[in-house]
Amino acid sequence: MKVAIIMGSDSDWGVMKSAVDTLKNFSVDVELTVASAHRTPQKVHDFVKKSDAQIFIAAAGMAAHLAGVVASLTTRPVIGVPINSEPFKGLDSLLSTVQMPGGIPVATMAVNGAKNAALFAVEILALQDESLAKKLISYREQLAAEVEVKDKKLRENF
Amino acid sequence: MKVAIIMGSDSDWGVMKSAVDTLKNFSVDVELTVASAHRTPQKVHDFVKKSDAQIFIAAAGMAAHLAGVVASLTTRPVIGVPINSEPFKGLDSLLSTVQMPGGIPVATMAVNGAKNAALFAVEILALQDESLAKKLISYREQLAAEVEVKDKKLRENF
Amino acid sequence: MKVAIIMGSDSDWGVMKSAVDTLKNFSVDVELTVASAHRTPQKVHDFVKKSDAQIFIAAAGMAAHLAGVVASLTTRPVIGVPINSEPFKGLDSLLSTVQMPGGIPVATMAVNGAKNAALFAVEILALQDESLAKKLISYREQLAAEVEVKDKKLRENF
Amino acid sequence: MKVAIIMGSDSDWGVMKSAVDTLKNFSVDVELTVASAHRTPQKVHDFVKKSDAQIFIAAAGMAAHLAGVVASLTTRPVIGVPINSEPFKGLDSLLSTVQMPGGIPVATMAVNGAKNAALFAVEILALQDESLAKKLISYREQLAAEVEVKDKKLRENF
Amino acid sequence: MKVAIIMGSDSDWGVMKSAVDTLKNFSVDVELTVASAHRTPQKVHDFVKKSDAQIFIAAAGMAAHLAGVVASLTTRPVIGVPINSEPFKGLDSLLSTVQMPGGIPVATMAVNGAKNAALFAVEILALQDESLAKKLISYREQLAAEVEVKDKKLRENF
Amino acid sequence: MKVAIIMGSDSDWGVMKSAVDTLKNFSVDVELTVASAHRTPQKVHDFVKKSDAQIFIAAAGMAAHLAGVVASLTTRPVIGVPINSEPFKGLDSLLSTVQMPGGIPVATMAVNGAKNAALFAVEILALQDESLAKKLISYREQLAAEVEVKDKKLRENF
Amino acid sequence: MKVAIIMGSDSDWGVMKSAVDTLKNFSVDVELTVASAHRTPQKVHDFVKKSDAQIFIAAAGMAAHLAGVVASLTTRPVIGVPINSEPFKGLDSLLSTVQMPGGIPVATMAVNGAKNAALFAVEILALQDESLAKKLISYREQLAAEVEVKDKKLRENF
Amino acid sequence: MKVAIIMGSDSDWGVMKSAVDTLKNFSVDVELTVASAHRTPQKVHDFVKKSDAQIFIAAAGMAAHLAGVVASLTTRPVIGVPINSEPFKGLDSLLSTVQMPGGIPVATMAVNGAKNAALFAVEILALQDESLAKKLISYREQLAAEVEVKDKKLRENF
Repeated sequence: MKVAIIMGSDSDWGVMKSAVDTLKNFSVDVELTVASAHRTPQKVHDFVKKSDAQIFIAAAGMAAHLAGVVASLTTRPVIGVPINSEPFKGLDSLLSTVQMPGGIPVATMAVNGAKNAALFAVEILALQDESLAKKLISYREQLAAEVEVKDKKLRENF
Repeated sequence: MKVAIIMGSDSDWGVMKSAVDTLKNFSVDVELTVASAHRTPQKVHDFVKKSDAQIFIAAAGMAAHLAGVVASLTTRPVIGVPINSEPFKGLDSLLSTVQMPGGIPVATMAVNGAKNAALFAVEILALQDESLAKKLISYREQLAAEVEVKDKKLRENF
Repeated sequence: MKVAIIMGSDSDWGVMKSAVDTLKNFSVDVELTVASAHRTPQKVHDFVKKSDAQIFIAAAGMAAHLAGVVASLTTRPVIGVPINSEPFKGLDSLLSTVQMPGGIPVATMAVNGAKNAALFAVEILALQDESLAKKLISYREQLAAEVEVKDKKLRENF
Repeated sequence: MKVAIIMGSDSDWGVMKSAVDTLKNFSVDVELTVASAHRTPQKVHDFVKKSDAQIFIAAAGMAAHLAGVVASLTTRPVIGVPINSEPFKGLDSLLSTVQMPGGIPVATMAVNGAKNAALFAVEILALQDESLAKKLISYREQLAAEVEVKDKKLRENF
Repeated sequence: MKVAIIMGSDSDWGVMKSAVDTLKNFSVDVELTVASAHRTPQKVHDFVKKSDAQIFIAAAGMAAHLAGVVASLTTRPVIGVPINSEPFKGLDSLLSTVQMPGGIPVATMAVNGAKNAALFAVEILALQDESLAKKLISYREQLAAEVEVKDKKLRENF
Repeated sequence: MKVAIIMGSDSDWGVMKSAVDTLKNFSVDVELTVASAHRTPQKVHDFVKKSDAQIFIAAAGMAAHLAGVVASLTTRPVIGVPINSEPFKGLDSLLSTVQMPGGIPVATMAVNGAKNAALFAVEILALQDESLAKKLISYREQLAAEVEVKDKKLRENF
Repeated sequence: MKVAIIMGSDSDWGVMKSAVDTLKNFSVDVELTVASAHRTPQKVHDFVKKSDAQIFIAAAGMAAHLAGVVASLTTRPVIGVPINSEPFKGLDSLLSTVQMPGGIPVATMAVNGAKNAALFAVEILALQDESLAKKLISYREQLAAEVEVKDKKLRENF
Repeated sequence: MKVAIIMGSDSDWGVMKSAVDTLKNFSVDVELTVASAHRTPQKVHDFVKKSDAQIFIAAAGMAAHLAGVVASLTTRPVIGVPINSEPFKGLDSLLSTVQMPGGIPVATMAVNGAKNAALFAVEILALQDESLAKKLISYREQLAAEVEVKDKKLRENF
């Protein structure tokens, strides 16, 4: 099982690192590249065509075409992460990523939603892998447990 | 292979019918329900917990909580379709669906992107089913062929 | 008389503290919890069902479903506080909280309007409690007096 | 028990009629007036000061100041209904109603959310009236039952 | 000749000081007050009714009703200055100030446009005062001269 | 006393007619022209320089530069009317008209606020003409009386 | 001299026809194609690489990647026309077209600005062709003359 | 070959310097001026009429009329750069620049897109200058090479 992560710019790494960390926590292989839809269209094309990843995560800001371009090149699932970029705070990235025309879907996450992109990839892979499915349930239980700890702490200090 | 489609209101059917049609074209089983996150929270809970679908598609308008509520109840993939609703033209539906907090992903499609929700579900299922993967490639070729026809027609009339 | 305050995350405490302070100034009991609509749906359910508070204040950011989820579980008044969250400055929180469908109302305050949520809860409780109603009138007089002081100060320095 | 409904213009009646109908269904008395914050400020002042209603519902479009003006004149609960008005589809009405400064709360409903304004008023009144509280629970059960009917119908036709 | 400046909060002084400075540069009398449409509606009412100013400038943030309330109380010209306030950066202030219904005009300036509010008041007063009209022309010439200086400086450094 | 009305396009006439009607009701002379800031900059220049109107009303849609261009050519008061134009419903017109830089004010009305532009011009002229001031007060009384009629009608039918 | 026009969908023809008409009026050759960035990426690639047009005009709606994709494939000037598409009225198309990252420019026109795209292409070509430059000046004179006619007509009817 | 750059304010220099640098890298002559559409309309007029530049780049913030005003004065290509200005982050600048009416085109770049404005000017000039066309291709190769370096670096550190 392998997930490919494509970033439009190395400046997206600060946001996308949490996607890599999350996938590693679930022992999913990660293939990482910086490739711009606009500056290096051929590189994007070659990367997508050669990659044996089951799922692509594409992150970009502004007129964020990267996820759409990847989706135009493959029928494997493509997850888009709109990056919070100046000055429109990711509204341009979000609309450029999510408003895809009929026929070529991109599964869009929240602006800067790198961790959720990784988790969604794991949810897809878990359909074929029961141990991954169990890990996801543990992860959710852990999320809930963390809320309980914060709740207790706040009530005590209150 | 089964995909469950939950609509917040039966008025969403006009939009969501194309998701059902698309899934049937790919011979994927569909389980359909109307269940509102706000009016029938228990029904949503019971439907998600009992369903044996591999993937959920949730469609809702306005403060569109349905996909997020479904995602909070399962670790299976949840695809959200924000419905174009008055007066904000789906901007509220889109933000309510896509801006999920870390931990609970919802894969969001374009406003009224019912067909793409179905296609994305098929892309996920195709990871486990080679015949489905082949059908997807044919579907893309057909899309491209349709563009060619329209292109030729326009050039001729021009 | 008791008001329950539910926060989607302990990071909302910085904003919501003023709601607690305001309720205490009016000698209204407060029940406080951190419970996420998405990470801990069962906790939200149990809290609302067990609480004997007359009014709920729910605060959340991004795709802020918390107030709507609470409102789906009770017919007691639910007041929503959209939290200013990055990158959309609370526009997503506001629309996710206020654009509720017919049948399940949420009384929405301004983004980060924690103090007004508490005051509105007091206004509701004051309908049953004349001493509280008098305190509210004093509070308004005090607000007006503070404006007078600032006015005088500015005119003098001017 | 009485609820006062103030509309900024008689053209708001098409939207606000459902608030009146809903209050009547719950046997709550309604006092109705057309009074503009801008054209008839004195009328608004006199109406609010003289009314013995427990709750005010104020509906207005564009730079919708009405609910805020009412709230500045009373410490009784004020519920605001932003009206969908051209050309900004109620975005101006919503922001003008909900973004109240600290001290003077307005409980804001969805754009055109007249029915929910009435239901929220009933929820407040039900805190003092057990029979009203029971009616609210019946109302919710009825909402859920209607969803069931629609669900069944859709599944059958499907 | 006198211009009255009303600010909804003393925190608006940082922005509005430039309006006072500008009016003084043109030797126009200024009457200054802090008065909130929501916290001190009576004070606003009394100030407007008693003031002998020819023009009112009203500045407020968020659901900025102040200019509209002043305009509802007088037929003298009212100039509105929407204040840049968190989190919506003055979009709420702008829409609340400018989207006035037919019959009650507010002359709206840019967000934080305090200096232009003062200049516009001077333009109105200059219709009755030739010396003021001449000063306005000098002011414009000075503005143009400043641009020339900056232009020269930039070209030289370039 | 004369007011000049400049429209960027003759298609603005449907909206601006009410400004002309209102000025005539107050017996104010009107000078009318169609002149585009972009298509006929010289015509705009010549019109403004030659006109003996005391006040200019400028109406335009989309990137509505007309009011700003007029204001750059005169120190007489300029009132801007953003026209509701497709597809952005006048948001572009509003921002292009109101967000003027320091030094060159434009008094901006609501989108399509032609009547208020005329009324604001009358308010300015009334500073020099007591009979006009009295007419404005009568106009306001008439507005209030119309609200009373509508109020009575609604209460009776209710 | 030749300009290539690429449309993402044949439904864009209603808007783009005026670009073709305008180019023909200036006797500029037009090469026309329907090619989708998402459905037919290869077709777009081949068209751009093979075309001997000096300038490309690309029109698309929603997540409008077409102009950006064309610009990534050529260093010839690319003009983007965002198409007004439901439900966001072209805001998504505009941001997806104009917010290009540094290095790959797209010259963006107004939403549905097909005629201006053609005129801008003519302006570019006119730099190399004096007769075209003269035609452009005539065209502007004609625009101004049309405004004069409309002005005269309105003044006469007024 | 010469490109003229007009800035509405010397404060735009921080952004526009990269346009000058880019043009110099391509050995294109630059003519630079600060001239405000609103404060110095005559200066803008004279500059445009006298300049022998082939292309104009106009940069301005807020109600950014500069590019439109320049375009109204010439039939040579005008490129607009909306400047990111407070508080609306350049949304006002963008709409004021791009939403030009039919007949007078402005080629709009991203907010603060100074470098792309210069590159687009070079693309236009390269149509008449083969050596410039070759430099543009080298520039693109260099952009792609930089992405490769960043990609390699990230993969190594990963």
